[in-house]
Amino acid sequence: MHKPSLIAAGVLLSANAWAAAPANEPIQPIQPAKIENPAKVELGKQLFFDPRLSKSGSISCNSCHNLSMGGSDNLPTSIGHNWQKGPINSPTVLNAGYNVKQFWDGRAADLKAQAGGPIANPVEMASSHQLAVDVLSSIPQYRESFKQIYKTDQITIDAVTDAIAEFEKTLVTPNSRFDRWLQGDEQALTQTEQAGYQLFKSAGCVACHNGPAVGGGMFMKMGLVQPYQTSNPAKGVAGVTGKDSDLNVFKVPTLRNVELTYPYFHDGAYWKLEEAVDVMARVQLGRQLQEQEIGQIAAFLRTLTGEQPSFKLPTLPPSSAQTAKPQPFN
Amino acid sequence: MHKPSLIAAGVLLSANAWAAAPANEPIQPIQPAKIENPAKVELGKQLFFDPRLSKSGSISCNSCHNLSMGGSDNLPTSIGHNWQKGPINSPTVLNAGYNVKQFWDGRAADLKAQAGGPIANPVEMASSHQLAVDVLSSIPQYRESFKQIYKTDQITIDAVTDAIAEFEKTLVTPNSRFDRWLQGDEQALTQTEQAGYQLFKSAGCVACHNGPAVGGGMFMKMGLVQPYQTSNPAKGVAGVTGKDSDLNVFKVPTLRNVELTYPYFHDGAYWKLEEAVDVMARVQLGRQLQEQEIGQIAAFLRTLTGEQPSFKLPTLPPSSAQTAKPQPFN
Repeated sequence: MHKPSLIAAGVLLSANAWAAAPANEPIQPIQPAKIENPAKVELGKQLFFDPRLSKSGSISCNSCHNLSMGGSDNLPTSIGHNWQKGPINSPTVLNAGYNVKQFWDGRAADLKAQAGGPIANPVEMASSHQLAVDVLSSIPQYRESFKQIYKTDQITIDAVTDAIAEFEKTLVTPNSRFDRWLQGDEQALTQTEQAGYQLFKSAGCVACHNGPAVGGGMFMKMGLVQPYQTSNPAKGVAGVTGKDSDLNVFKVPTLRNVELTYPYFHDGAYWKLEEAVDVMARVQLGRQLQEQEIGQIAAFLRTLTGEQPSFKLPTLPPSSAQTAKPQPFN
Repeated sequence: MHKPSLIAAGVLLSANAWAAAPANEPIQPIQPAKIENPAKVELGKQLFFDPRLSKSGSISCNSCHNLSMGGSDNLPTSIGHNWQKGPINSPTVLNAGYNVKQFWDGRAADLKAQAGGPIANPVEMASSHQLAVDVLSSIPQYRESFKQIYKTDQITIDAVTDAIAEFEKTLVTPNSRFDRWLQGDEQALTQTEQAGYQLFKSAGCVACHNGPAVGGGMFMKMGLVQPYQTSNPAKGVAGVTGKDSDLNVFKVPTLRNVELTYPYFHDGAYWKLEEAVDVMARVQLGRQLQEQEIGQIAAFLRTLTGEQPSFKLPTLPPSSAQTAKPQPFN
């Protein structure tokens, strides 16, 4: 029930030691963003917030990955073009750079590949890559930004998604209470929260939810021990590979900021963190947790809420007379 | 063609004189926001960005008054709950505190009265005042904020709209090039832009579009000299008073940031500023402007773009187990 501690070992903590994570913990701290190309990040931020990437002119990346709300929309499934109901819960964009692949079924290799999907998905933003590029190319300030960053007069969907991904890579949430504890601040967690973490490990949750993002590193069958009951028809990785063995296999979601990213699971069926813990223990581990245990694990999970992205709301460059008009109602 | 100048009168400009607007111009500079209650402004900002004020959990004030886009949504009419088409163009929230009344038909006395409208409007956010208050009351961090600011444990719609209005009052756009020119910087405008301003006055535009907001101070019939052709059924003030004499009478909109707030007029029928100038001159003044004149006035109007609101994207407090769930699809 206690974390191996440098202090306990009689070693004085240097500044470096304080910042370093214990090598023997299955969860590592989130690292602050390293911004190498601020201009590209700023352009990506504008694009992330720009609803002109959608056919209607009203849906932006931020609509479903709302950075005021844990990088999610806090809906079971999202609302797309023409109020269409999305097929699956929108995962948080926070710390998504840690994901081994993107989307619940892993069909995109990385953030850049992911970013192009919703733009052209008819039930999401319902635009096309060509239309999105044409719209951006008609806006003088965007032309100038792309030219400065990508050294070309031609805006491409490749550059658009590259810039969005560069911004998304900065959407990390360091300095959670748990990370401060990992880094040696023993006061950062209560006894209950520490007990929850020990239980999270001993019960087996950590087998899938590990690494800096406490998930995102692997795929796993939803309903490994007991079938998971859902009305959501998503097939998981099987929808990509066509293999029966991939049925109901989904990416293990990050648990960072999980207190903010309700409702839970790919179907968004559970709103309470305690319920989600209970279901997970039963269907993945075949274990019925006691109420106290559930409370301890949930208490631990709430310590994973890190510093939320902090930046100025971007001002978007105005359209020009050449910009294709949004088409919300036809 | 030139502005009366203190320099021309041989008076040395003091810092004060530089900041003061010429008393004899019909347009005055936008004043920077004076924030007297930062906590209330911050709460209002959170509420402005919080989609939980809508039934679906997806529409916030910022959806239609997007502060990344000139405080508007750049759509002819907005998209409401269940993708319903709004009846009238969403006016910009920027500098809206200068409006003599709110809404195109003036049916709300002030920003506070306005803020309650869309929340409960079934074609907009489709919630109710009771539901909105219940949702906010279920969120511990909101309860704490309201308690600190309003000294009560009971959140009311009155306090909700008061806080939103307090934030909106800060959404002013000072230091436009035109305001710098008004304040004595003769280099701030080109000759074309200055010619456009003189024409804006001599042609009669300024009769309605005057004051700090270059509009917002009065109501006027749309189609004063020639009928305005539109398929939009809005009746203007007559919809409020029932008087035939108020038919097609609308609030004169602000022209501040007009370059950002396309499409134009209560029906959002015109996307190009030059077209809007041309139509206005014909239907309001009975005057057919030459292309060069239209270009000059449009050039002047583009100098009215001020500093856009600059603040950090708010982080919203998470819902609790008691929070009513959003209902996007029923």
